[in-house]
Formats: sequence, C-alpha cells, structure tokens
Amino acid sequence: MEAAKLQNIVDAVMGKLFVELEASGRHVHVTKEQAQMLFGHGLTPKRPLSQPGQYLANERLTVIGPKGEFQNVAVLGPERKEAQIEISLTDGRTLGVEPPVRASGSVQGSPGAVLQGPKGRIILQQGVIAAKRHIHVHSDDAQKLGVRDKQIVKLQTFTDRPVVFADLLVRVSPDFATYVHLDYDEANACGMKPGDLGRIIP
Amino acid sequence: MEAAKLQNIVDAVMGKLFVELEASGRHVHVTKEQAQMLFGHGLTPKRPLSQPGQYLANERLTVIGPKGEFQNVAVLGPERKEAQIEISLTDGRTLGVEPPVRASGSVQGSPGAVLQGPKGRIILQQGVIAAKRHIHVHSDDAQKLGVRDKQIVKLQTFTDRPVVFADLLVRVSPDFATYVHLDYDEANACGMKPGDLGRIIP
Repeated sequence: MEAAKLQNIVDAVMGKLFVELEASGRHVHVTKEQAQMLFGHGLTPKRPLSQPGQYLANERLTVIGPKGEFQNVAVLGPERKEAQIEISLTDGRTLGVEPPVRASGSVQGSPGAVLQGPKGRIILQQGVIAAKRHIHVHSDDAQKLGVRDKQIVKLQTFTDRPVVFADLLVRVSPDFATYVHLDYDEANACGMKPGDLGRIIP
Repeated sequence: MEAAKLQNIVDAVMGKLFVELEASGRHVHVTKEQAQMLFGHGLTPKRPLSQPGQYLANERLTVIGPKGEFQNVAVLGPERKEAQIEISLTDGRTLGVEPPVRASGSVQGSPGAVLQGPKGRIILQQGVIAAKRHIHVHSDDAQKLGVRDKQIVKLQTFTDRPVVFADLLVRVSPDFATYVHLDYDEANACGMKPGDLGRIIP
C-alpha cells in the first residue's frame, strides 16, 4: 500500500496534475459591525491563509448550539457582508444542528447559532453550514489541470485511506492559490496529512 | 444531483450490486473479566446489531484520554478476548490520541486509554483504533456481488456527497449479514443517511 501510494504521487507529479489538499477546521466569518459588538474592534490578522488576502484572526469566539458549544473557535478575516459558521457534520451533532452542505456564502435557510465574544453576544438566525468541498485554481494552473471555472470534477486522493471524492466545484481566479479544500470529516475519512496531494479526474 | 442519485440507485438495484451502508459510532469491546470490574456483572443485551449475535449492551462507559473524554460510550457484546476502543480520527483529536486505522482485533502497539464504569476503572495500555472500513458479505451474496473473502475492493456511494472509497476489505462468512461498515468520519464525508447504498467496484 505504501508503495502504491508513492507510485501514485510520482505519476501525478510527473503529469503535473496534482493539487495539494487542505483541511478547513471549524471557523466563523463575521461582519465589521459584528466584530465591533463581539470584540470591541475590527478583526486583527494573526497569520495569512493559503488564499491570498485571507487570514486567521487573533480573535476567537464561542459558538453555542441547542445541544453543545465549541469554545475558542477560529475567526477568519477579512470581515464579510454576512456572518457564516462553517462546521463539519460531526460538529453539527455536537452543537445539535444539521448544517446543509453549501458553497461558502450560501446561508439562506441554514440553522442559526449564538456567537459569544469577550465583549458581546450575537444570536444568528441563520449561517451554520458545512462547506461544500471545492478546488481553488489559480488562472495560470487551469489549463495545466484541464479545468475551467464552475466545472464539477472528481478528485482522487493520494492519502492513507484513499478516496475519490465526486462532485467538487472548481473555481478559477487570478486571486486564488491552487488548493483543494476539504472539511475535517472528509480529511479524516481519507486519512489526509499536511502536504498530501490529490489528482483531478474530469 | 437528486435525479442522478436516484438513477444510480435504480441502476444498482437492477444489477443487484448494491450493499447497504452502516456507520459505526464510537464504541468499546471488553473482556468478561473487565465487564465484571467495570459493571459488577457481565454485559446484558439492549438490542441486536446488524451482524448476527452481536448486540448493543445496556452498559455504558466513559472513555478518558490525555486531552479529553467521552461519556456514555456504547459497549458492544458479546465480550471479547481483548479490549478494544473504536473511535474516529476526529474523536482521537478530542481524546488526545492518534488511533491507527486497523482491522478489528488488531490492537498491537495502538494507544491506550482509561475506561471508567459505574463499579471500577481500567487503564488500558493499548486498544484504541480507528476501524478500517470493510464489507461484511454473507456467503450467499458473495457470488452475486462478485467478491471473495479477503478481496480488496472500491465502493461507490449513492449518497448526498458521493464518494468512491478505495481499499475496503471484503470478509465473507455464512455468519455475516451483508453491510458496508464505515466510521462517522467516512459516513459524514459522504453525507450518508440511514438506508443509503453503495456499489462494489472490483
């Protein structure tokens, strides 16, 4: 199995068809007004994320659901036009909500939750989703990978528990770094470790 | 997507190639001696599981790791020759252990944990694993499904987040009911709901 995994990686690298996998842990996006209410100030960057301009904030939140809560949850910046709480389906069982699997920004009709910060508390009527797996592709990589914006592809993972994920949305932009984004259910289901690769299957 | 999912299911049913998916939540196996120490008596059946002779016990345990614990964890009977704690990799992060992905019964060198019952506490030096996904096949179904004992196959899921799982071990026995067993990371990664089906790909 280890040999087969290595061979797969070599094949992919030789064909330049590989994309690095990244797992997104549970996190929250807030608006400028909400950051003010929760923290008393806007978000401040702690470190950059793989996607240009995006950052992990120094600020942290408690997310409270009907059945449980998560403390010390990451907040990602910059601020957005609408709040969004991205969790895994496993996390949903802990909180007591059933997040729909949605593309980022698509929160209409999703369950709500309570955000507790050091300076205030906000009750969100909606915003809890499980992020639909997707691939960010820099425009320069799109031709090499043989994909176009909004294409739906499959992805073969070169990981400890190999999987082919179907139904991944490709998004192409000059503002993206090329990465596959999985949530932690998906990352653990395929045994992903940092630096692991996948290959797009059209 | 819903139409495609239905069509896939129809295809599979027509070809009689489908296998029902089951998710195994975190659970514990103990020996007769350990049951005595933890509960003051042997395990008592609450309800049967899909595999003949196996049952969910009335008894429950707390599983304690270096970083966290799970209360009210299911215990499965009948008792075994060696204790085993089956959790997901996600659960491992909560407990603070890194379970290897192993076939049931293969616990050599795996991390330990503490089991707390109403009548006693046991410190296990090993036994925490993530169950390697597998397919139980009744002997009468093996030919229909085109598989033999110990074969490694892939499995396409007809689920909300469709996936092909590679590297599933097939086990054939007249004592088995035919089911795919996934852990909750895998079940959530593919959006599995009770009754969902998969198709074996040789």
